[in-house]
Amino acid sequence: MTRVVQKFGGSSVADAASIKRVARRIAATKQAGNDIVVVISAMGDTTDDLMDLALEVSPQPAPRELDMLLTTGERQSAALLAMALSDIGIPARSYTGSQAGVITTAAHGNARIIDITPGRIEKSLEAGDLVIVAGFQGVSQTTKDVTTLGRGASDTTAVALASSLGADYCEIYSDVDGVFTADPRIVKGARRIPKISYEEMLEMAACGAKILHLRCVEYARRENVPVHVRSSFSDKPGTWVMDPADITKGSHMEEAIISGVAHDRSEAKITIAGLPDAVGRAAQIFEIIARADINIDMIVQNASRVMNGRTDLSFTLPMSDGPTAVRALTAVKDELGYEQILYNDQIGKVSVVGVGMRSHPGVTSTFFRALADSGINLQMISTSEIRISVVVDADQVDDAVRVAHTAFGLDAEGEAVVYAGTGR
Amino acid sequence: MTRVVQKFGGSSVADAASIKRVARRIAATKQAGNDIVVVISAMGDTTDDLMDLALEVSPQPAPRELDMLLTTGERQSAALLAMALSDIGIPARSYTGSQAGVITTAAHGNARIIDITPGRIEKSLEAGDLVIVAGFQGVSQTTKDVTTLGRGASDTTAVALASSLGADYCEIYSDVDGVFTADPRIVKGARRIPKISYEEMLEMAACGAKILHLRCVEYARRENVPVHVRSSFSDKPGTWVMDPADITKGSHMEEAIISGVAHDRSEAKITIAGLPDAVGRAAQIFEIIARADINIDMIVQNASRVMNGRTDLSFTLPMSDGPTAVRALTAVKDELGYEQILYNDQIGKVSVVGVGMRSHPGVTSTFFRALADSGINLQMISTSEIRISVVVDADQVDDAVRVAHTAFGLDAEGEAVVYAGTGR
Repeated sequence: MTRVVQKFGGSSVADAASIKRVARRIAATKQAGNDIVVVISAMGDTTDDLMDLALEVSPQPAPRELDMLLTTGERQSAALLAMALSDIGIPARSYTGSQAGVITTAAHGNARIIDITPGRIEKSLEAGDLVIVAGFQGVSQTTKDVTTLGRGASDTTAVALASSLGADYCEIYSDVDGVFTADPRIVKGARRIPKISYEEMLEMAACGAKILHLRCVEYARRENVPVHVRSSFSDKPGTWVMDPADITKGSHMEEAIISGVAHDRSEAKITIAGLPDAVGRAAQIFEIIARADINIDMIVQNASRVMNGRTDLSFTLPMSDGPTAVRALTAVKDELGYEQILYNDQIGKVSVVGVGMRSHPGVTSTFFRALADSGINLQMISTSEIRISVVVDADQVDDAVRVAHTAFGLDAEGEAVVYAGTGR
Repeated sequence: MTRVVQKFGGSSVADAASIKRVARRIAATKQAGNDIVVVISAMGDTTDDLMDLALEVSPQPAPRELDMLLTTGERQSAALLAMALSDIGIPARSYTGSQAGVITTAAHGNARIIDITPGRIEKSLEAGDLVIVAGFQGVSQTTKDVTTLGRGASDTTAVALASSLGADYCEIYSDVDGVFTADPRIVKGARRIPKISYEEMLEMAACGAKILHLRCVEYARRENVPVHVRSSFSDKPGTWVMDPADITKGSHMEEAIISGVAHDRSEAKITIAGLPDAVGRAAQIFEIIARADINIDMIVQNASRVMNGRTDLSFTLPMSDGPTAVRALTAVKDELGYEQILYNDQIGKVSVVGVGMRSHPGVTSTFFRALADSGINLQMISTSEIRISVVVDADQVDDAVRVAHTAFGLDAEGEAVVYAGTGR
């Protein structure tokens, strides 16, 4: 018997009608003879609404209590889905994260899964139940308090459960058809990627493709859980995220150098101009940023200006953290001795991702030539082994995505052909 | 140090502003140096809204899942209240019924508390926390599933916790000022009862006074927990429900025969006319009613009509169960051999309650004389040791309450003087 973990997002269970629709869909998979565990998010905007309520009560809600509050959203949708399934003759039981044995750290609001002890849901499966688990939540190993795993982390719950239950695979249902070679709203010729490696998916996720939560992909890669990303609104296959060895096994797929083009408009850029070029200055700056609990993304430092021994340091960070970072750095202007801070939130990041670039040294020049030919200026550049990212003006992001997509031959008819397993 | 359990109902925490107001009120009691455990209901109409959602998903929601769904309401208000308290400098922690150790039977929707194992909240109290417990819920001893105790049962949670924590008393806050000698909307001269015995409160609750849940009073009596019923919208003292011995101790209160007049418009009356007067007929009828899961209240059977060996049997039941009962009895008309069923939902029950009547044989005649003088016809009569109830036409209920209130001298100026401890 195949054992499957299916995860449905908030937009799939926005109201009673959608819950009943999802129930019928799950029932079909169950009746095909599979063991099923469903992980469910809160209905529609429930989490946002609860957060608003919390902020009405307290400007800085106590984190333990915020977790107690927010976890009720998934408990509600889990119970409702179980009712809907029972109603159509599928015995189903819902479990909270705690009941399902999702053991986490005690870091309220951003806990990490330490272990899953699925004894109770294993028993429920043995009894023939369809099991529904409230996503996004667990219980602290030390305090026994209810914890949450951070926004979007129901995906991680699903993959972690799939791993600990020895499921054959994990399906992540949302309102998109899968992972595309670029955002179809920007690139008309964008195509669904049928299979993609964990590594490429990680880079895509980190570069703004919001299909899967980063931590979920990391977990899937570590535990080698095949993940099928697909739409809950159609029966079409989606994108399989899996081990590269399994992708190429027995196939004769044509090699593609680049899997996809991702973009991200959520970041801003800070430039610290005229920074004395002394040992430890950069460390000092990023310590200040870290103390403000801000994650930075790209960092670029140019060569010293020969004349005065000063340098310019630029980095990108989430736009929402911009003002905090500027405040923190302005407070130590004299200590750091820089000339001025420049803040720019009218930027965007465009990335090309593909394992093929490991063995194709021409990728960088192809990418940069295409951008240059379209008059797109590069503000920052950063690379990994399988990714090249550039920061451009916000109003040139769409153009940059389109020309990159074309330059790497992704506009072709039919479905994207991705990953050839070369270069490993 | 005084240890107090305070329970706040849904109308006291209907929105963020009320939650903050309740938090300030609780903080004042805490700052006076008390150990405090708060039991909280769901916000405003939350439970009804969740129930509506469940019925949209399934016409007969699975009971286990309904409990999983409904219990989220109290978890939300508990967490929000804890945030509001932390926000004003009172360290507070919320606990679900399960976390608080409220162990129940497995009867979903109507579970009973078997035991409370308050280890976790005792520890929290020792650490100086103000403890908030989600009312209305527990965890099944056998299945470990989340259970609910039935509507209005947060009062019971509060009293049970007060007993198991050895609290000095339990305060039940709602939107009324306490228990009155009659409904002040009907009787202008109705007065607050400062102290009332458990037994009288039980009779009042059973006869339609909706101040306290019946099961809660039973629990308080069994465990001898003094209960203070008061308004969350004022600082005025309310009504103490307590052991009669403690009420009279050291006081020289004037004796009142009747504590109060209760009324109830929620019942209907079924009369089975022309029932063969044979052994076992009544048992048969009430077995049919019990199988339909209907609780009956008053039963009256008149003497056989001499001529034909037939009798009339009347009983009252919740109006909402009326149609079901009529259907069940009509289905066995031939088997039972009765002539006809009469159904009347235009009735009301008026009751006078008081321990004083044990030693005052004239109470019945005073009551009936007052009703007769006002032209009120009695359809049914039922009595207990400390209560007399009559069923009258629905449109004569208000009059009946008023004349009874006057007849027993309850209209006097000032607060009601109740219970003298005689007759025990």
